[in-house]
Amino acid sequence: MADAAYVAVDWGTTSFRLWLMSKSGDIMGERRSGEGMTTAMRTGFPDVLASHLSALSAPADLPVVICGMAGARQGWVEAGYVDVPADLADVLKGAVRVPGEAADIRILPGLAQRSQDTPDVMRGEETQLLGALSADYSTGEQLVCMPGTHSKWVSVSNLKVTGFSTFMTGELFDVISKHSILSHAVESAEAFTGDLPAFQSAVAESYNNPQMATNRLFTVRSGQLLHGLSATDAKAKLSGTMIGLEIAGAHSSARKDAKVILIASGALGELYKAAFAALSIDYVIIDADDAVRRGLVAAANAIWP
Amino acid sequence: MADAAYVAVDWGTTSFRLWLMSKSGDIMGERRSGEGMTTAMRTGFPDVLASHLSALSAPADLPVVICGMAGARQGWVEAGYVDVPADLADVLKGAVRVPGEAADIRILPGLAQRSQDTPDVMRGEETQLLGALSADYSTGEQLVCMPGTHSKWVSVSNLKVTGFSTFMTGELFDVISKHSILSHAVESAEAFTGDLPAFQSAVAESYNNPQMATNRLFTVRSGQLLHGLSATDAKAKLSGTMIGLEIAGAHSSARKDAKVILIASGALGELYKAAFAALSIDYVIIDADDAVRRGLVAAANAIWP
Repeated sequence: MADAAYVAVDWGTTSFRLWLMSKSGDIMGERRSGEGMTTAMRTGFPDVLASHLSALSAPADLPVVICGMAGARQGWVEAGYVDVPADLADVLKGAVRVPGEAADIRILPGLAQRSQDTPDVMRGEETQLLGALSADYSTGEQLVCMPGTHSKWVSVSNLKVTGFSTFMTGELFDVISKHSILSHAVESAEAFTGDLPAFQSAVAESYNNPQMATNRLFTVRSGQLLHGLSATDAKAKLSGTMIGLEIAGAHSSARKDAKVILIASGALGELYKAAFAALSIDYVIIDADDAVRRGLVAAANAIWP
Repeated sequence: MADAAYVAVDWGTTSFRLWLMSKSGDIMGERRSGEGMTTAMRTGFPDVLASHLSALSAPADLPVVICGMAGARQGWVEAGYVDVPADLADVLKGAVRVPGEAADIRILPGLAQRSQDTPDVMRGEETQLLGALSADYSTGEQLVCMPGTHSKWVSVSNLKVTGFSTFMTGELFDVISKHSILSHAVESAEAFTGDLPAFQSAVAESYNNPQMATNRLFTVRSGQLLHGLSATDAKAKLSGTMIGLEIAGAHSSARKDAKVILIASGALGELYKAAFAALSIDYVIIDADDAVRRGLVAAANAIWP
């Protein structure tokens, strides 16, 4: 077995993923935890990294390439932003070295859209984009959907990001489920999938009438009062309303001829696939975990050729 | 001075307002407190009422007419709903007497819209509507806006409610301000009025592009990161985005020839007036407190002629 050559880390707000990589790009080891920026701000970024390297019996002095919120102002070291429009390859050139560490640790910058009307930022998704698009979508127009706490929709042209929009879908779903009057309506919900008719009809209704979104949310409650809507259907309707609203917004401001690419994993990816199907939107899907790892590998190959 | 003839109570989820009335409709005394349904569910509805009557030195056996959440399933006594389309006068006929009390205490029913697609309910606003419209707007078509935690927009034709929609505007503003990532952006905000350009532009932007609402919310955060948006402007933008989205929804489903009537009081009324002005929407305003009291007086006159 080859020796480990470097470490690739996707360090989000609430998630931490690490891969131990060989020079040729093979995965030698992998770690996942909830020690995202929020945790590491308290416990220390160096200690979190060291503990995971130790758990893999990896040398502490391997080079490390990091993307995500570790590069935010409140992260480990601020890595700034590359302004759009930007070639994705330019992100690799902007890596910042963490000072005072024996190992060569680099944090990749994010992307910033500095328009007065639609300011926006991303950290981590730019690396995912690079990994997702470099192989098969290096030319042409794409509209890339990266769902999550703060879903990103990115317009890409020949590997250049021309603009992007963040939608607070996942966070709003979570906050409304927990802290609004709808919490009573959804608290006993069971797990559901995108196959549920209540989800699909809410996606379509919200996409077609986005101006009614905060009314549709109230019908989750009134539907339970008047029609005995089940908790699971209620939660699916809340989810579908938020996702349909997001897709309506993303579609309204994007080129209609762009190819829609969904970068997602797991249950959330399945929900978006069902939403696209309900709206008859053609798309291709790329696995989010694979994409960010491939992006980090591309960064490592550029930084340590 | 005339003797007190009856007691009128507007008993909301989190608010309690009581007026001591003479037979001819003069106000003999008034009480306001935060002992809404949420509090009274714990401390007991009879005790809350008795304490306020005692504070006004009013006889404990006066007749009492109540509107609002005291008539909900989890309230004092369930008063049911009158189904729309409904003449507002029919609400008065549906009052339910509270059993086991020496005094004659009546709770007015709410309104229910039982359609499968747009189920909706109100409690208290129907009484406000009756009081607001009976004198000057008993004929013609009105679109009535009652802003609040759950804003109601009601289509009325010749004092008949033909349909209505609830928007979760106030609650979502509150939940997002307190529990989402935007809480950091708005926590040091000062009080603002509808004159603030950040509020007015957010109203217009959200009204014109409702599908971008959850993206516009994120720009509250990214605007602070990239452009130094102040906390006060951030909070005004959050408020304007939610209110603009509501008005877009309400307008899209209403008759365009209906007269817009705003039933509101205080700072919230001022914000909606500014929002209507920013959108060039003609309206008349009726004070919300006066309206509900006049509705309760009409109910008392119908119940105890």
